[in-house]
Amino acid sequence: MQKIDTLIHAKWVLPMAPSQRILNQHSIAIDEGKIIACLPTSESHQLFDATNVVTKDQHILMPGLINNHTHSPMNLLRGLADDLPLMQWLNHHIWPAENKVMNPDVVELGSTLAIAEMIRGGTTCFNDNYAFPLNTRNAAIHAGIRASLGLLIFNVECQWSNNEKEGLDKAKTILTEHNQSHPLISWTLAPHSPYTVNDAAFLQLKELAEQYQLPIHLHLHETLAEIEMSHEHHHMRPIQRLAQLGLIDQDLIAVHMVHLTPQEIDLLAEKQSHIVLCPESNLKLGSGIAPIKSIIDGGINVSLGTDGAASNNDLDVFSEMRTSALLCKGAAQDPTTLPAHEVLAMATINAAKALKLDHKIGSIEPGKQADIIAIDTSEYWQQPVYNPISHLVYAANPLAVSDSWVAGTPLMKNKTLTTIDTTALSSQIAPLIEQIRPFMYQDKK
Amino acid sequence: MQKIDTLIHAKWVLPMAPSQRILNQHSIAIDEGKIIACLPTSESHQLFDATNVVTKDQHILMPGLINNHTHSPMNLLRGLADDLPLMQWLNHHIWPAENKVMNPDVVELGSTLAIAEMIRGGTTCFNDNYAFPLNTRNAAIHAGIRASLGLLIFNVECQWSNNEKEGLDKAKTILTEHNQSHPLISWTLAPHSPYTVNDAAFLQLKELAEQYQLPIHLHLHETLAEIEMSHEHHHMRPIQRLAQLGLIDQDLIAVHMVHLTPQEIDLLAEKQSHIVLCPESNLKLGSGIAPIKSIIDGGINVSLGTDGAASNNDLDVFSEMRTSALLCKGAAQDPTTLPAHEVLAMATINAAKALKLDHKIGSIEPGKQADIIAIDTSEYWQQPVYNPISHLVYAANPLAVSDSWVAGTPLMKNKTLTTIDTTALSSQIAPLIEQIRPFMYQDKK
Repeated sequence: MQKIDTLIHAKWVLPMAPSQRILNQHSIAIDEGKIIACLPTSESHQLFDATNVVTKDQHILMPGLINNHTHSPMNLLRGLADDLPLMQWLNHHIWPAENKVMNPDVVELGSTLAIAEMIRGGTTCFNDNYAFPLNTRNAAIHAGIRASLGLLIFNVECQWSNNEKEGLDKAKTILTEHNQSHPLISWTLAPHSPYTVNDAAFLQLKELAEQYQLPIHLHLHETLAEIEMSHEHHHMRPIQRLAQLGLIDQDLIAVHMVHLTPQEIDLLAEKQSHIVLCPESNLKLGSGIAPIKSIIDGGINVSLGTDGAASNNDLDVFSEMRTSALLCKGAAQDPTTLPAHEVLAMATINAAKALKLDHKIGSIEPGKQADIIAIDTSEYWQQPVYNPISHLVYAANPLAVSDSWVAGTPLMKNKTLTTIDTTALSSQIAPLIEQIRPFMYQDKK
Repeated sequence: MQKIDTLIHAKWVLPMAPSQRILNQHSIAIDEGKIIACLPTSESHQLFDATNVVTKDQHILMPGLINNHTHSPMNLLRGLADDLPLMQWLNHHIWPAENKVMNPDVVELGSTLAIAEMIRGGTTCFNDNYAFPLNTRNAAIHAGIRASLGLLIFNVECQWSNNEKEGLDKAKTILTEHNQSHPLISWTLAPHSPYTVNDAAFLQLKELAEQYQLPIHLHLHETLAEIEMSHEHHHMRPIQRLAQLGLIDQDLIAVHMVHLTPQEIDLLAEKQSHIVLCPESNLKLGSGIAPIKSIIDGGINVSLGTDGAASNNDLDVFSEMRTSALLCKGAAQDPTTLPAHEVLAMATINAAKALKLDHKIGSIEPGKQADIIAIDTSEYWQQPVYNPISHLVYAANPLAVSDSWVAGTPLMKNKTLTTIDTTALSSQIAPLIEQIRPFMYQDKK
């Protein structure tokens, strides 16, 4: 009998790799934060003597979900202004509120609020993009969640930097001090968008990304306005410009990608760039519907993001999976496209690949980090469950997630967070909410 | 002080009519199943002496949601077969399973399962369409939920009838015995679809509907295949055929309506027909995306349905509201279309109008039935809540519904159902699930 830290028994295990088959009555053995084995429960009793034995006999165990694009501090602005044109939303509500309240402490608190929501809903890793990333780093480390943090480069004056040079300098400083300084934290270079970053800055940040072998996390082809602006200033589409600058390659995590030509899809596939779809944000802001089927058929690695809570208005990856699958089928008028197991891959192993973390996370395989969630299937309102894979995509509610582990450490037990005091959190954000409230939009009826 | 049955105090009340404004710190007074008053909480203390006082100080009170198209017994087939072409789904999975298990008792049990899910998620009235409606009636009456039940007319042999004549005869018998026999139950004539009902039967059921002043509840223009079939057999589109038969009028509840010309939208608006959108079912089955913006701009009364759990895969009206709003904005590339308060009207007062029940339900107004739900806004994972109206559409989870009343009777208290024993229900459906399981679809990976 091998002594190990934790043994989790479940009704079903969905490992995602090497096979996407569902395994009945299986167990996951964990030691020193890593998955040691995934095996039939009957065999596990013979092989392992675990300090912690957790029995989840009505549950599905699967790799934790990866939210591959969000702006975690913006959880403080959830629902501040809805149903508005993009520029009115930004200029009259979001930016004034951010200018008023955002500072390092508030970013840390807002990130903690987002992390609490994400853990509750089954996310064990998030790819963030916001100012003051060291404070989001603090929040993630404190909560024990895995995070990929963007180093923002932006040619507009903001709380983080006055220009791109300052953003680049801050990125260099952070990487010098903090690259690989904590096992849960990785970094990306995060140029804001093609219309807020100049060519020179793109070249410099690309060099920095190569030096540290980091992905580049970029909003791209989100709106038609962005493409028109690029035509006006650069006489070409943003992707063409980035290709000329040498940024279209396997290190690019291109977010949104709503408006794409077949040639652009071919180019991204050929260069092995990664696409993150944020279908609900794109719908809600009226950006449009990405050509999901063509992107997938083109062979591009696709993952999913919620975007920030100010434009979604939640950080629910289950909902994003469901919306992606439904939207792909509906737009293509083909119910067989983007089946459930493929959309589950987007939210797990595909996302890990984009982050260059697929050697560590994204599936339940021996040697990987024990980032695992349990989904309860026993509640009457979701009965019956015939096929656990389609259940997860088409019927599961994020509140059915009951338990979460990152690197073998429990972050949630039986629907109660273990690393964040949510009552204290609600008290802490209360005065901030009152500072932000004057910026809200009230529709007249 | 007036003696009354129930007084509910809340942080917010959303009456939906006559105003869609949110009311702060208001209370609802209920007596003999009806709403007596909606007034500031401070005033309510002076005016009413209630037997039951319920304080919901972190909650929104609003009219119960109306699920305006479903097939409740099909909850037993939830997730049985997904990601399949429509005909394969029907012929190889759904119909064989129905033929195997559906009978009056199973319909009653399946309806109870659906009703339990609907109450849990804030639905207080549903518009059903299935065989053995007297058994769904039993289930609804036992659970205390309001139901509009379709009397199925179908030219295909099924468990309910061998042909249209038998369906019409059964409808006549039921109406003779049961029309207005219970305050929670109303009826519709439910011809299955244009391709499964002949002209003569349409004319006969229209006459019957007029005799009893009932709506006609019909699947219409759901798929392109339906329209092609109509061209083949009738040399015109289904709506044109129904117009010639005299069925396009204010008694028509036309469900799905994915494929519409501008002329058809004008016709339906002019004739004051009602449209029920089922956006998630239409997406999932690959039927397409309804022209929601054009339908609304045309001035047609629109409400929402989940469709059955076999094709959705849940009965979550919150999700349907959210998907409608998002899809309308995304398809039109305009974030201002279908704002939150309009989509809330679809799920409440508009649905009541289509059912000819708007004198009784759909808003919180004195004299109406006390069909009310409370939504808890205090949980950390949904904080902050700036605008309760947009919160309900863009961020609320159906599991945040905490309490439900129909005609003043509580159906759920603090997230526990009061009229359905959900533990017993799970035991009762267990053997049925095993009978249905052999018909499930398993995707190969």
